Amino acid sequence: MPKDERWEKPLYQTEAVNDEGLNGHAYVPDGIKVETSNPLNSRPGTNPEQLLGMSLATCLEATLQAIERENGLPHTAEVHVDVAFIGDRAEYQFLVHAKILIKGVDFETADKLAQEAENRCPVSKLLKSSGNYTAETATSFD
Amino acid sequence: MPKDERWEKPLYQTEAVNDEGLNGHAYVPDGIKVETSNPLNSRPGTNPEQLLGMSLATCLEATLQAIERENGLPHTAEVHVDVAFIGDRAEYQFLVHAKILIKGVDFETADKLAQEAENRCPVSKLLKSSGNYTAETATSFD
Repeated sequence: MPKDERWEKPLYQTEAVNDEGLNGHAYVPDGIKVETSNPLNSRPGTNPEQLLGMSLATCLEATLQAIERENGLPHTAEVHVDVAFIGDRAEYQFLVHAKILIKGVDFETADKLAQEAENRCPVSKLLKSSGNYTAETATSFD
Repeated sequence: MPKDERWEKPLYQTEAVNDEGLNGHAYVPDGIKVETSNPLNSRPGTNPEQLLGMSLATCLEATLQAIERENGLPHTAEVHVDVAFIGDRAEYQFLVHAKILIKGVDFETADKLAQEAENRCPVSKLLKSSGNYTAETATSFD
């Protein structure tokens, strides 16, 4: 399927490459390069689960910072994202669960701001309709 | 929304953290740590778009390697992923487009294998129902 007309005037566009899979590297031309490894062995390196988790955590956190500013609140938000790899060969799936902690406001306020972040963060929007994405407003991190 | 019962026995589980947004770091406890930066300025660092692109590229590439092996083909597949940031404040979105190149087989075969990878890669599955994800079988990379 070709790109649609929404690609014509992006605010920003980037490209990521992998030609080595889980035992090599992924990189952005002229940008970051990371070593990859299989999540099921102990070789050093990162994997699609961690890269996706860091993408979502960063997107949600940046959205929360904007929401904190808009509400005149100090920055206290933290985001942790769990990613699980489940299933059998050729039927593998990822599960994604975001935990949002906002200290210094009551839980009801934190929950309202967290839900606003969920609705605005572009990575959350991409995952939302998958059926494999959940989020919660946390009261602490273990 | 809490985690469902599918989280109970994962093959693998990981966690990613960000408490600094686009001007700091994202990390996996005891694992990778990356510097983050805003895609709209030139400060060094990576961003949610690139992390998501590397996640998808690595997932698709690893799936293609498995499919190549299953079909007795040498490994030639390469994956490039474009990610665009579009929209206006509070209405931002990401667009994701995967390009799959498989050299050494005819286009029809390449297209069939690429579509199989699309259907099996867990990150593709997460993005598929978003309306913002497209993929194509490439005949070359620019």
